[in-house]
Amino acid sequence: MIFHEDNYIKQLSIDCVIFGYKENELKVLVPKINFVEDVYTLPGGFIMQNESIDQAALRILNERTGIDNIYLEQYRTFGNVGRRNVDVINALGEINKQIIDNNQLIINIANTEWFSKRFVSIGYYALVDINKVSLQTGEIDESVGWYNVKDLPTMIMDHNEMVLYALEALRQNIDRKLIGFNLLPDTFTMKEVQELYEAIFDKLFARNNFQKKILDLNVLERLEKKFTGAANKAPFLYRFRREI
Amino acid sequence: MIFHEDNYIKQLSIDCVIFGYKENELKVLVPKINFVEDVYTLPGGFIMQNESIDQAALRILNERTGIDNIYLEQYRTFGNVGRRNVDVINALGEINKQIIDNNQLIINIANTEWFSKRFVSIGYYALVDINKVSLQTGEIDESVGWYNVKDLPTMIMDHNEMVLYALEALRQNIDRKLIGFNLLPDTFTMKEVQELYEAIFDKLFARNNFQKKILDLNVLERLEKKFTGAANKAPFLYRFRREI
Repeated sequence: MIFHEDNYIKQLSIDCVIFGYKENELKVLVPKINFVEDVYTLPGGFIMQNESIDQAALRILNERTGIDNIYLEQYRTFGNVGRRNVDVINALGEINKQIIDNNQLIINIANTEWFSKRFVSIGYYALVDINKVSLQTGEIDESVGWYNVKDLPTMIMDHNEMVLYALEALRQNIDRKLIGFNLLPDTFTMKEVQELYEAIFDKLFARNNFQKKILDLNVLERLEKKFTGAANKAPFLYRFRREI
Repeated sequence: MIFHEDNYIKQLSIDCVIFGYKENELKVLVPKINFVEDVYTLPGGFIMQNESIDQAALRILNERTGIDNIYLEQYRTFGNVGRRNVDVINALGEINKQIIDNNQLIINIANTEWFSKRFVSIGYYALVDINKVSLQTGEIDESVGWYNVKDLPTMIMDHNEMVLYALEALRQNIDRKLIGFNLLPDTFTMKEVQELYEAIFDKLFARNNFQKKILDLNVLERLEKKFTGAANKAPFLYRFRREI
């Protein structure tokens, strides 16, 4: 793919914080860019002249991770003066200012001036069922990995700060918009819901109060008991009533 | 003031929804641009290369309305494909593509191409004590007025929709961030707080429940009774404890 800079809005980017949940940890998807030095960034990209910013966010997510059809929400735009791709530009210098992938010149020296300007970035966060995602690396990515939100690698520019704002937005929206269930598989136990909330808020909840609060939301459908071999102690499975 | 387009980020703007409260109505400040035809817009402008988006929003607010030092919050970025200044450009055509103010050429035909591109706009909302504001019109404004949020003039592009999103953000944030008191004078009665909330949410609240909820927030300081001439029925005045 050749990058035609005229097709994109200048100095404006989109960065996505993709949250997943596994093994009692809230995780964030962080690609490592295919440079000589390790460069970690949120999956991001630019906005084409002929697409809305929401369309751009979905396209970028898909190109960089293979994920589509997921819950995505814009949460904040970042625009400090110092937002410049200095790390990326430095790495470009290291590898002769070219990134070659499949013998295609993606970004060449002519674009360096385009990339090196200050960028304003629109932040989106996404919530995915981590088990349903089969990751792919984008053309410019060497690898991509899930990291505990509390133990992220140091990313370029203000990307670590962008994650903190995304987490705050997730916490504010989770009750009102009932979006947390996007992080769980289709069926789950009440204990698993509580562990998810505890991972998101990074604190423990009292079991009885928590269960009452969740059940009072009236959005869960109770299914059969989970098969554990010990019938008496088996917990019920629940499913989120998506029609709400 | 001459507009030097190279000093600004292209295709990116800021628009401000300024809320005020008076006579039991939630109001929005809407300038009318100094064109041949009536053109209503939110107060907006562009981002200089050497300022953050927050700094730009404060500068734009001040230039267009004379307001400074007020509560301002970014709430959403708008980026549909159709966001183009067609109304403004058409009006520019009507007045020979020039806006003259104080014998200074502000926007000349050379800038028409710059302005006519699609713009992504970062939305901010502001809350002001309407009695403390002495409005001024910006260089390109013919007049500026406060309009009931429920009865706004038709503005350019998606500016009316931007107000709806700002109102929704205000409603979501008012309890958590206790920002509503920015709309009131320094001292107020409980009845006035209730009327403010009723204007913001466009519905009535039960008096006892509302008063209990507000007092339970523990952010108000009770002062002397308001002087009304009838001592027995005089309501207490309150003040927001800003140190919180």
